[in-house]
Amino acid sequence: MAGTTASAGLRQPLDLSRRFPGFGDFSAPQVVVDADALAANIARMGGIAAGKVALHPHVKTHKSGQIAAMQRKAGAAGFTVARPNEAVMLLRNGLGPVTLAYPMIDAGAISRLVSNPGNGDVRFVADSAQGVDALASAAKTAGRALDVFIKVDVGLHRCGVDPHGDAASLLARKIAGHRHLRFIGLLAHAGHAYGAGDAEGIRSIARQELDLLSSLRDRLEGAGIGIPLVSVGSTPTLLANAGFDGIDEVRPGNYVFLDLTAVRLGIAERNDLALGIAARIVSANGTYAIANVGSKTLTSDLGAHGSSTAASFGEAWIEGEARPFSVEKLSEEHAFLRLESRSLAIGTPVLILPNHSCPVANLSGGLALLQHGAASRLFAIDARSNDEVPAARE
Amino acid sequence: MAGTTASAGLRQPLDLSRRFPGFGDFSAPQVVVDADALAANIARMGGIAAGKVALHPHVKTHKSGQIAAMQRKAGAAGFTVARPNEAVMLLRNGLGPVTLAYPMIDAGAISRLVSNPGNGDVRFVADSAQGVDALASAAKTAGRALDVFIKVDVGLHRCGVDPHGDAASLLARKIAGHRHLRFIGLLAHAGHAYGAGDAEGIRSIARQELDLLSSLRDRLEGAGIGIPLVSVGSTPTLLANAGFDGIDEVRPGNYVFLDLTAVRLGIAERNDLALGIAARIVSANGTYAIANVGSKTLTSDLGAHGSSTAASFGEAWIEGEARPFSVEKLSEEHAFLRLESRSLAIGTPVLILPNHSCPVANLSGGLALLQHGAASRLFAIDARSNDEVPAARE
Repeated sequence: MAGTTASAGLRQPLDLSRRFPGFGDFSAPQVVVDADALAANIARMGGIAAGKVALHPHVKTHKSGQIAAMQRKAGAAGFTVARPNEAVMLLRNGLGPVTLAYPMIDAGAISRLVSNPGNGDVRFVADSAQGVDALASAAKTAGRALDVFIKVDVGLHRCGVDPHGDAASLLARKIAGHRHLRFIGLLAHAGHAYGAGDAEGIRSIARQELDLLSSLRDRLEGAGIGIPLVSVGSTPTLLANAGFDGIDEVRPGNYVFLDLTAVRLGIAERNDLALGIAARIVSANGTYAIANVGSKTLTSDLGAHGSSTAASFGEAWIEGEARPFSVEKLSEEHAFLRLESRSLAIGTPVLILPNHSCPVANLSGGLALLQHGAASRLFAIDARSNDEVPAARE
Repeated sequence: MAGTTASAGLRQPLDLSRRFPGFGDFSAPQVVVDADALAANIARMGGIAAGKVALHPHVKTHKSGQIAAMQRKAGAAGFTVARPNEAVMLLRNGLGPVTLAYPMIDAGAISRLVSNPGNGDVRFVADSAQGVDALASAAKTAGRALDVFIKVDVGLHRCGVDPHGDAASLLARKIAGHRHLRFIGLLAHAGHAYGAGDAEGIRSIARQELDLLSSLRDRLEGAGIGIPLVSVGSTPTLLANAGFDGIDEVRPGNYVFLDLTAVRLGIAERNDLALGIAARIVSANGTYAIANVGSKTLTSDLGAHGSSTAASFGEAWIEGEARPFSVEKLSEEHAFLRLESRSLAIGTPVLILPNHSCPVANLSGGLALLQHGAASRLFAIDARSNDEVPAARE
């Protein structure tokens, strides 16, 4: 992994004699996971964190209790989620504590989660007075105390308080003032690192994140507000590795699978990528070969957070070829592979590397784990987004 | 519906006093369907086809047996699918005949479908010798005859034989030569109409499609090959309405919901759109308000078949405002709404109109049907892509 420049990352072809064994056996499109790459990615992040910071992987990437259990064995101290149903799935599997790193603002939704005694081990975030009030109300209803991080915006400009203003201290005091809430620290996500271009740019964003959080911590502590924990984390900032000064916990998600975005950023080689889509060529014309997989499996994502400069929807590899076919267009169930001067016979198996693995796993009914010398196994996707729908308005 | 120019289509704001009643009641993101718009869209297409062509709607847009049943009541003679599991869902609901308008090349997959006596009423397409052989082999195994269209490429350059070459006559003779296959005609999809820009451009593509198919039919009939049926269809070419000379069947899909792509093409007004995503503002900063819905619900699609020029991932409407907020960026569970000079309070309900409704329905766990004066009902999504996964390699 971790060529230090983007061009190094882009040089190595996918080696299908080593990776995704048996991908050609699927006639229907199937999301597949290379067992060796998955194990290596999980072990590597465990090693990066070991003895330095507590690892709380984000499970949004795989939504699978089985993969989370592998991460636990490799040292994960806890897990991170974006949706209540992901938290419930982990807690049912005994995989707490869970950090629900999403600004919940609806007391009813929080109550439904925490009123179940089995869901005790959840930590929350807030970045607004409304969020704190919703948490306090739900905590009171459930008759228990809830742990709350303040979410800090370190540059993605998505959620989080401005680290330069008064919002953090006001919210910290508001949390501390509620009988049922405990202020447990600062939490940030430098997702804008996905737009950094290369590993050095990512390190610069990671250092800036550390500086912002450390200044804010000093300012709050100077005002008498103790900061028990500081939690950061994205796969790019951790793999580009800018150090852990002042950091207690990290929450990377994508690292288990990686994808072409990580290759473009120079933090992974293609042979580190653990998730692909097995497909077949079903038609061909003078311009395109057509594979039996489209946006309903591969997604139309170009990268993360709208920051990608990808020129295609993925790369289609075939065994023995040193150069992929570009996935130039997608219909819902078709991929258009640009042929240029080459040809592809109908029936040819292709392995597609996606731009962004997280939403691909969410769209799959299950991941087929491929391993040399073993039958493929199926990993269930246990907590797809939107799988839990209200029976009526809530 | 059907402003005749794109600009007319873009002028009318979404009227949330008429559409999507109660969308603000959902605190978790929820794909919602306006009952009145849905009924109007289904009735309108029924009217366009009535007495002129047989309507075989494509169910990939909704994947719901309940909505297909509404289409049947409005005159659908049969249905169209892209995946075997969609066919099975329809046939279980007594909604045949089903046209599997996808080039199946795997005899095993075809066999699994047709060896079930309940799946008798399926028609297939082929655009290659391999496809015909796979169909013949499966038909022989199942001991029954299968109906086969030849898929013709009328300009999308996805699947289908070149209408100017010999492929159609060669394939037709090959089909007719198999004891278990019946050649039933020509089938095309002018999906490139989505890139036409406006209604006049779409009509031009529709006329070209009719010309190509009519020339090919003449040529084949001249060579002694009878053409029982000609099947075409896309929502744009049908709503832009260029006539039905020589056409027996039409297969539009998107029309039940429509989306911003149809508005941009000038074939729908915003108030014709039946599908939206109900969400809430959960955070805000100086640049963006953040809604609790991202690419795992809304998808990153800009349109159909990669032909879109959309500048955003959708429009976020709030009650009483004549202008939407642009969905400028997406994370997996967040939408970044550009605030410009306006503001949005945390907790504000927003109704997001998507660029492309079909993959949104596929990502939902169920569609909430909203109707004035009635409780919301849930439409199940019965045949999501990838829901049927192999227990092992197949």
